[in-house]
Amino acid sequence: MRRLAMDRAKRLLFGSFLSSSQSSLTPGPASSCFPFSPFSSEAPMSLYKFPPVTVETINPKVKRCEYAVRGEIVSHAQRLQQELQTKPGSHPFDEILYCNIGNPQALGQQPITFFREVLALCDYPALLDRDETHALFSSDAIARAWEILDLIPDRATGAYSHSQGIKGLREAIAVGIAERDGFPANADDIFLTDGASPAVHMMMQLLIRSEKDGILCPIPQYPLYSASIALHGGCLVPYYLDEGKGWGLEIFELKQQLAVARTQSITVRALVVINPGNPTGQVLSEENQKEIVEFCRKEGLVLLADEVYQENIYADNKKFNSFKKISRSMGYGGDDLPLISFQSVSKGYYGECGKRGGYMEVTGLSSDVKEQIYKVASVNLCSNISGQILSSLVMNPPKVGDESYESYMAEKDEILSSLARRAKALEDAFNSLEGVTCNKAEGAMYLFPRLHLPQKAIKAAEAAKTAPDAYYARRLLDATGIVVVPGSGFGQVPGTWHIRSTILPPEDKIPAIISRLKAFHEAFMDEFRDQGVA
Amino acid sequence: MRRLAMDRAKRLLFGSFLSSSQSSLTPGPASSCFPFSPFSSEAPMSLYKFPPVTVETINPKVKRCEYAVRGEIVSHAQRLQQELQTKPGSHPFDEILYCNIGNPQALGQQPITFFREVLALCDYPALLDRDETHALFSSDAIARAWEILDLIPDRATGAYSHSQGIKGLREAIAVGIAERDGFPANADDIFLTDGASPAVHMMMQLLIRSEKDGILCPIPQYPLYSASIALHGGCLVPYYLDEGKGWGLEIFELKQQLAVARTQSITVRALVVINPGNPTGQVLSEENQKEIVEFCRKEGLVLLADEVYQENIYADNKKFNSFKKISRSMGYGGDDLPLISFQSVSKGYYGECGKRGGYMEVTGLSSDVKEQIYKVASVNLCSNISGQILSSLVMNPPKVGDESYESYMAEKDEILSSLARRAKALEDAFNSLEGVTCNKAEGAMYLFPRLHLPQKAIKAAEAAKTAPDAYYARRLLDATGIVVVPGSGFGQVPGTWHIRSTILPPEDKIPAIISRLKAFHEAFMDEFRDQGVA
Repeated sequence: MRRLAMDRAKRLLFGSFLSSSQSSLTPGPASSCFPFSPFSSEAPMSLYKFPPVTVETINPKVKRCEYAVRGEIVSHAQRLQQELQTKPGSHPFDEILYCNIGNPQALGQQPITFFREVLALCDYPALLDRDETHALFSSDAIARAWEILDLIPDRATGAYSHSQGIKGLREAIAVGIAERDGFPANADDIFLTDGASPAVHMMMQLLIRSEKDGILCPIPQYPLYSASIALHGGCLVPYYLDEGKGWGLEIFELKQQLAVARTQSITVRALVVINPGNPTGQVLSEENQKEIVEFCRKEGLVLLADEVYQENIYADNKKFNSFKKISRSMGYGGDDLPLISFQSVSKGYYGECGKRGGYMEVTGLSSDVKEQIYKVASVNLCSNISGQILSSLVMNPPKVGDESYESYMAEKDEILSSLARRAKALEDAFNSLEGVTCNKAEGAMYLFPRLHLPQKAIKAAEAAKTAPDAYYARRLLDATGIVVVPGSGFGQVPGTWHIRSTILPPEDKIPAIISRLKAFHEAFMDEFRDQGVA
Repeated sequence: MRRLAMDRAKRLLFGSFLSSSQSSLTPGPASSCFPFSPFSSEAPMSLYKFPPVTVETINPKVKRCEYAVRGEIVSHAQRLQQELQTKPGSHPFDEILYCNIGNPQALGQQPITFFREVLALCDYPALLDRDETHALFSSDAIARAWEILDLIPDRATGAYSHSQGIKGLREAIAVGIAERDGFPANADDIFLTDGASPAVHMMMQLLIRSEKDGILCPIPQYPLYSASIALHGGCLVPYYLDEGKGWGLEIFELKQQLAVARTQSITVRALVVINPGNPTGQVLSEENQKEIVEFCRKEGLVLLADEVYQENIYADNKKFNSFKKISRSMGYGGDDLPLISFQSVSKGYYGECGKRGGYMEVTGLSSDVKEQIYKVASVNLCSNISGQILSSLVMNPPKVGDESYESYMAEKDEILSSLARRAKALEDAFNSLEGVTCNKAEGAMYLFPRLHLPQKAIKAAEAAKTAPDAYYARRLLDATGIVVVPGSGFGQVPGTWHIRSTILPPEDKIPAIISRLKAFHEAFMDEFRDQGVA
């Protein structure tokens, strides 16, 4: 009994301590959700079962979140792959071709040699003291590894870094950004992250307070955005890209959708722009970007600029311009527009998806808001150091005169020109199919062809309780082993159907892929073609 | 006008499509929070400014979250470090000693050679084809690198992996777990993550639906838990560890706090146990663990077992037992208890914090709940591959007969025995200080001494608008350069004050650190000692 009374007193004190500590420099461990209000009788000891953890009792935001790029069709592909291994010849193809995700090295793309040399040396710095190393590594990779190690306190590549990332690496990235844009960048604005995805989550977590907070997102969009908004309990406010104008981003549409959202009492906090587009592949013009900047300024929106495909440009008449460069060239400084730019080592010509490197450059937010971002970053301590190093490398690759420069440029040019050829070949192939139209991939890694499906196919999909484009994708996979993602996972104008395919299969396989695709499509249309149309 | 009407029709369709798609295999891009209900007049185009992004308008959950391990005192230490660099001699010490965080390699601990050899070879597999490599790398590191590359589809270490991690690496980890526990483990239960923190966040995200969902956490606790619960909007239900009994975990206390929470209509969903303890260093006994398992079973709680310090045991009479081993040895199978075990490459004798590797082993949850966890993991695609490889290495280090075995064991033993000596030396030092009592660090990497502070010091802290332990820590830092974390960041019985210090400073510096600590403490007590007590 005495013990109980003591415990009660302790709890009461703890409760009040928690509240009072909120204002001190060293706050208590959590919010005071658990008030320990005084009670006069014994604490009730009756035990009742809570529902066990079932899909019905988990966080509904988790349930609502969807991520089609690794959804049902991919699980099915993995099953087929296992069947092929255990029972070769069990399907009309001998390999699964994953065109569902921008994962170049999974499809045979080789890493850039210089980058991997530097990473290996930083992982095992003892190599730098050995003579044999000079026979195995290029001299500039060795020099760069030394430079990087000297930026890391005690050269400890196995230590947690500053939660924004190693300061010296952020400075190197800032130099790279400044060279790209012609405008200065600041290391303190850079947050290094494990790929771009955690950076997007951090911003959504910061901005979304409830389901009445909205984020303007393109439709079609990369489903990270819809998933992150769902997980954080916000509202995706869609704006449609105009397929008829090469997936054009119309300011008129942005204004309309913003106005509609406001009539629904939704507080729109940010605009997501993906440039070059995913899944749509368009590259925005400078004029268009200027209009977007003005729109965000006028409407008080944070501009979330997904610029992870900045190195993936294939159209001769197109050029990537960062939104930071555009806004600075318009005369706007850091205080005029909250602008977050996301970049990743997973894309570009490097395609180092498995390294999980990336960063966001945060400009136009006050220092106390940035402190809150830092705090959230600090809870996870830091992003992985190899990813941090690689982020600094992609923003500062070998320069003219470096030993690796020529081989580096040859590797880079070969990858990018091959991607451009593959994009064109697959675009032409899609456009050659009956009832399929496909915009050009000016940039990024995807084609998003529209399928004008026969009514009979739509009915068959209905009967199979699936969306028509998912039905088509599933039939394509079962017939050819090619994995694409149904357009419904990205969003599309209702009544239209698309698939997203990467342009990443190895170039020497493209002709065979196109043959399989054409044969499948022809057979599909023969099966479903509307009577009287053929 | 026609354009507007068309847009409206389009939106209406989109809205209804979003709803209907929820039940299909290929759902729409987001929840239907934005219903586009019919409206008869023009969309209102009046523009009104929303509040810009300020600390007042960000997500309040972000504001509430605190993470003392990288809080105010660390920011102050970083300022001092900069001052020391720009103005040597400006402070009464010549270096900052970061004892705030378990970051061994930042304090001079060297990585395990074998692990780094394998990582370097996997980063730059071209080395494996070169003769010089045999002079630079041990034969078993080369063999292991080949083994690992063969587990990775196309040997592509730069590709996104399966969202749970590379299957073959998970199988290797399952073998390591089975060898540790004497009970089988399943690769499908393992989720590889960027350190343990994202795994903890994933579980909190899954379990917490609202502020009425509670998580039982030890006090003192590692502030990742309070921060994650705050970010996900749940309620931390505290249970106190008994300092007088070596930070004992009393089932009586668990029952009491659970009962109190239930009177507050809080649905307690899980129990966090940190074993070995952080910041408290105790190692739970087998009997105690059995009681905890029974408690969770009886009360329908998920057991979240933070076992990241499983290799850090210093007390001769103590042994780490995983909760999985305990529950299996009690005869409970996978379906009898939802049990999540967290492990990390950041701790142990390896201390590879910067690599961000780790995993959680998820047992006792149904396959459809695990599918939801997989879905959330898939939104971030995968954890970094180097961290995945390292996780497999720490769970499967060199074996007797391998070329590296002896040097590996020598490195491991030297680190662990040195940590044990340092723990003892610092424990003795704290206990030698006037008014300080310190429990033994049986395991983990920390001491959590209690400060019996004079009233005058408490008043001085009040005047400085800070908690007394934060005041002490700040004074310690300013006088000695030693960074510790105030106990209030972890939680403590009200009216008691503590600091957490790691045991990680290099062994040759420990005598000097102890001298500085003693001199500071003596001066502090001389300044504040209550009259008539001395």
